Amino acid sequence: MARAIQSLAIRGAPLIGVAAALGIAVAAVKPAHGNLITRIETALAGLVTARPTAANLFWALNRMHGVLDGSTDSESLVASLVGEALEIQEDDRRRCESIGSLGAELIADGARVLTICNTGYLATAGIGTALGAVYKAVDAGKAVHVFACETRPLLQGARLTVWELTQAHIPVSLLVDSAAAGLIASGGVDLCIIGADRIAANGDTVNKVGSYQLALACKRHQVPFYVAAPRSTVDAKCSDGRSIPIEQRNPIEVGQIDGKTLTVKGVSILNPAFDLVPADLIAGIVTEDGIYSPASLFRKGIGAEEL
Amino acid sequence: MARAIQSLAIRGAPLIGVAAALGIAVAAVKPAHGNLITRIETALAGLVTARPTAANLFWALNRMHGVLDGSTDSESLVASLVGEALEIQEDDRRRCESIGSLGAELIADGARVLTICNTGYLATAGIGTALGAVYKAVDAGKAVHVFACETRPLLQGARLTVWELTQAHIPVSLLVDSAAAGLIASGGVDLCIIGADRIAANGDTVNKVGSYQLALACKRHQVPFYVAAPRSTVDAKCSDGRSIPIEQRNPIEVGQIDGKTLTVKGVSILNPAFDLVPADLIAGIVTEDGIYSPASLFRKGIGAEEL
Repeated sequence: MARAIQSLAIRGAPLIGVAAALGIAVAAVKPAHGNLITRIETALAGLVTARPTAANLFWALNRMHGVLDGSTDSESLVASLVGEALEIQEDDRRRCESIGSLGAELIADGARVLTICNTGYLATAGIGTALGAVYKAVDAGKAVHVFACETRPLLQGARLTVWELTQAHIPVSLLVDSAAAGLIASGGVDLCIIGADRIAANGDTVNKVGSYQLALACKRHQVPFYVAAPRSTVDAKCSDGRSIPIEQRNPIEVGQIDGKTLTVKGVSILNPAFDLVPADLIAGIVTEDGIYSPASLFRKGIGAEEL
Repeated sequence: MARAIQSLAIRGAPLIGVAAALGIAVAAVKPAHGNLITRIETALAGLVTARPTAANLFWALNRMHGVLDGSTDSESLVASLVGEALEIQEDDRRRCESIGSLGAELIADGARVLTICNTGYLATAGIGTALGAVYKAVDAGKAVHVFACETRPLLQGARLTVWELTQAHIPVSLLVDSAAAGLIASGGVDLCIIGADRIAANGDTVNKVGSYQLALACKRHQVPFYVAAPRSTVDAKCSDGRSIPIEQRNPIEVGQIDGKTLTVKGVSILNPAFDLVPADLIAGIVTEDGIYSPASLFRKGIGAEEL
């Protein structure tokens, strides 16, 4: 499971959390040598380092770790771990429903919605976060046109978001990430809504690389820029975004596509997986319990409770 | 030659102008049926529509067209056309030298320079424009590190700029276009310098898609953002950038790499080749005769003279 998360076979912050919890459950259930507690702790150690940025991973593993404290015998512990993992999965599904319904209120009939990366059912245990809002808006009978940034380097927008929306018969246009600013400038976008990998207490949001330039262009042209994420993405221990680690991934993801080298072999390559979007660029954060300004998200203190 | 320009076998605004001029010369020289003037006019008509955005194309073809007016006999006309085309080529080479020398003054020893697309000797008849400034800074003994945006969709940064700089043993790091904003935010860039496809009278600059988001991020973080281009790129007939046509290219350039489909087949794709960078985001425009603020470039009126 850790390898699946590292290699992005499983990705999307909420889904990473769910998958990690299920990974612990699998470690508990599967026949194996050695002490059950040792097996669980080994699995926790392997999963907690799988990726450094998404808050949901640590949130879910903390929940799973909490089950260990209440354990009496092995049989009940295994049952409790499986139960907790399935509850985390179901919990995420429910949160997506609420985020989608609340986020849909931001999307007017006929809206042109810009997004990046993939935040739908391939990224969560439910209908998604930012894309969940689109699904719910369409369910409510609104016409929505999505502009999907391709999301270099790994093209989650081109490969996943376009696929999801095409399956759902929702109109979608693909564009390279850096073309979004011009589209916004031309008046072609009514709102931008993205997911999040971690949200600091002040509302600073870390999300897929490319998010920051979208937020800058939206600010310049007064296009509202929203973040949609479950409370499990809020990390109240990070007072602002600068303390959130940004994962640097393998340069090969930039330098090659499907094994074909796109540049001079051996050149130095930067490959940050994420961007920091400062809170002042964010019009609102859509969570399962409401839509908040970045500052009020913190004051409500739900992030702190949850974590 | 028109096909070579359309397919981007020849690209880079200055080089497009030079190549178009040479195309007219070839049409004049080569043995062919029909009237010489008719052949030239057919070639002019074919080349003038090859690409819609780069000012240099129209500038060079205007110069070639001017030769027709002074013609007396066929033999002297052919010689004049060949001479004018070669002079346009040599002219561009000289302008690059000047732009490079002036631009190099903006680059301090140890500077970390961000750029996009390719603006070196693969884009001009000389050492280049923005990249020419880097070459001249390095020639002057300065240490320079270039951050090259890959430049989706056609990866001129990854394929051409990285190659040029590697050949010249100048340190270069490649990054996806949308990662530049985060690099700028982290303090990793001292200045940004790009080329231009057309500059309006007010200094608004149209350049490769992705340029605008770089300028927005530079503005936010007080990183100077420069444009480097010959006067042949200035179009005084365009009072501001909104009147500059933005070429929309074949969607296949976004949807495929080397024949491999990267997204759902048949999806709607936007593929603007260029971005408009408003003059207020530009710290200075480096031309062959000086470095100007966008407003003073117009007041000096050299653009109008040249055109």
